[in-house]
Amino acid sequence: MRSYAIIGCGGIGGYYGGLLQRAGHPTCFLLRSDWAHVRRHGLDIRSKNGNFRLRPVRACRRPEDMPPCDVAIVALKATENARLSAVLPPWVSERPCTVVLLQNGLNQEAHVAAAAPRSRVIGGLCFVCSIKAGPGLIRHLDYGRVALADYRPDRRPGVSSALRRVATDFERAGIPVACAPDLYAARWHKLMWNIPFNGLSALLLSDTRQLLALPETAELCRELMRETARGARACGAPIRPGFANAMMADTAVMKPYATSMLLDRKRKRPMEVDAIYGEPLRDAARHGCRLPRMDMLYRQLVWLDSRHASERSDRRKRIRRPIS
Amino acid sequence: MRSYAIIGCGGIGGYYGGLLQRAGHPTCFLLRSDWAHVRRHGLDIRSKNGNFRLRPVRACRRPEDMPPCDVAIVALKATENARLSAVLPPWVSERPCTVVLLQNGLNQEAHVAAAAPRSRVIGGLCFVCSIKAGPGLIRHLDYGRVALADYRPDRRPGVSSALRRVATDFERAGIPVACAPDLYAARWHKLMWNIPFNGLSALLLSDTRQLLALPETAELCRELMRETARGARACGAPIRPGFANAMMADTAVMKPYATSMLLDRKRKRPMEVDAIYGEPLRDAARHGCRLPRMDMLYRQLVWLDSRHASERSDRRKRIRRPIS
Repeated sequence: MRSYAIIGCGGIGGYYGGLLQRAGHPTCFLLRSDWAHVRRHGLDIRSKNGNFRLRPVRACRRPEDMPPCDVAIVALKATENARLSAVLPPWVSERPCTVVLLQNGLNQEAHVAAAAPRSRVIGGLCFVCSIKAGPGLIRHLDYGRVALADYRPDRRPGVSSALRRVATDFERAGIPVACAPDLYAARWHKLMWNIPFNGLSALLLSDTRQLLALPETAELCRELMRETARGARACGAPIRPGFANAMMADTAVMKPYATSMLLDRKRKRPMEVDAIYGEPLRDAARHGCRLPRMDMLYRQLVWLDSRHASERSDRRKRIRRPIS
Repeated sequence: MRSYAIIGCGGIGGYYGGLLQRAGHPTCFLLRSDWAHVRRHGLDIRSKNGNFRLRPVRACRRPEDMPPCDVAIVALKATENARLSAVLPPWVSERPCTVVLLQNGLNQEAHVAAAAPRSRVIGGLCFVCSIKAGPGLIRHLDYGRVALADYRPDRRPGVSSALRRVATDFERAGIPVACAPDLYAARWHKLMWNIPFNGLSALLLSDTRQLLALPETAELCRELMRETARGARACGAPIRPGFANAMMADTAVMKPYATSMLLDRKRKRPMEVDAIYGEPLRDAARHGCRLPRMDMLYRQLVWLDSRHASERSDRRKRIRRPIS
């Protein structure tokens, strides 16, 4: 059985890593705050498909403690990609392996490829509602499908044997998988949802149902989706006909959903603004395509993110200040 | 001396009405929450041009209590214009007089003209920082200029003798006045500031300095100003060359300013969304001009406004619920 290193054990890494370990794959997890808890108590996964506990769990606190594995799954937030080489275990850059990036946004695999130049890099898009609800506690609320695709800077289409192997492991572990021939196009398709709903929900502190309940914001979601489709087309990744309508209809009937960006905003944590908005805007601009609403949402979110950053820094200063 | 009825005694009505009374004009004020206080203690005006107290103040609680005056100054928020005929004293509709609307937004004089069909209607734009800081207490922080212009649905340019008389009264009371030949164009010029700064400050809970401190939002303010200029041009009210640059430069050096819309949002009161955004957008659309950023800001503000309205209604329900 192929071995898996799970870098980041939040809602995504904990859930999918947990399913792989349950299926019998030797699996180890890189954790920060929950390390001691998970080492002691394992992982508790409450899934709409059935709860399960994993114990023992091989929990590592530092990247260099992770044993070499066949596949590394990076399930960190995109805001951490800038310092990725410090977070990946050393063997990822030293020997050929497979690295799967489970993340939102566009063009983020370039960070992985730079940090793991000898490895096959695979991008993964998760259509899942799963959150870390407490130390070692993962709540899988709904959905679960993963789209996997090879990262190729030249966008030559195809599906590598490494990708097929990972897809087989995922499927046997109970994870619905689709192998996509074009990662860049797959990412633009996912952005069709993330661009309207992540940003607006964070900005307006609202879930999907609240956004769609008011005609003015429902139409704004549609307009942002249309702009995303325009950007995708300009970048040579046209959106399938009917895709936007299907996505709006699905969202209207799904349970009210608090996006990851909304949760990040509420907790004043860094938001994935650059991966979800900055990269698509820059790619579209390179193709002469201006997207005013997406650009405006980007600027509003940068503002929020920057305020949260300065609040975090103020808090650190307060904590550090010596008592006089 | 011409007599003045001041409808609404907030930062605008209290300040300008106070200056007119101080200059010797027989003046009466329509008040709601502060009526008893002002009747007893008068008005306390703390102005950067010098503090003064007015006592006694003729304070009326109901429109029908107001004695007939030569001029009525409407200094309510634009959100009250829909029910204007219930707020104006009866003599305004019964006999010819002069009604001055001191308000932000576009096309709001049409409400006044409908409620006072025999009167000369004048629009006034206040370039002033003045707030009601407590019962009967007005704080005038900065600026103070008023641009006055006749309301003519056909936009025929000109300055009526009624307008000249009001302007003379204002000037003698110490209020800097400019008479504009084209109210519609003057309102679009004022919107050049209100459209970027009112909405973004309310949405992002920030003052003007915070908006301009971050390059991303400073550029967004400029983009919204450019869209406003495009809308104005499409509607036949072109903005003077250099106006936008001057306005950005003025705002960058002025004291950090909390817009009226920001204050309304913080207090969860109705915001002037339709007057400042809805009307300009509809006028521009009638001329085939789409303004995506302004439209997006409008939709975001409608969302906030609607949430505040439902919170107010929840609160009323809670208060009304009998104790069981």
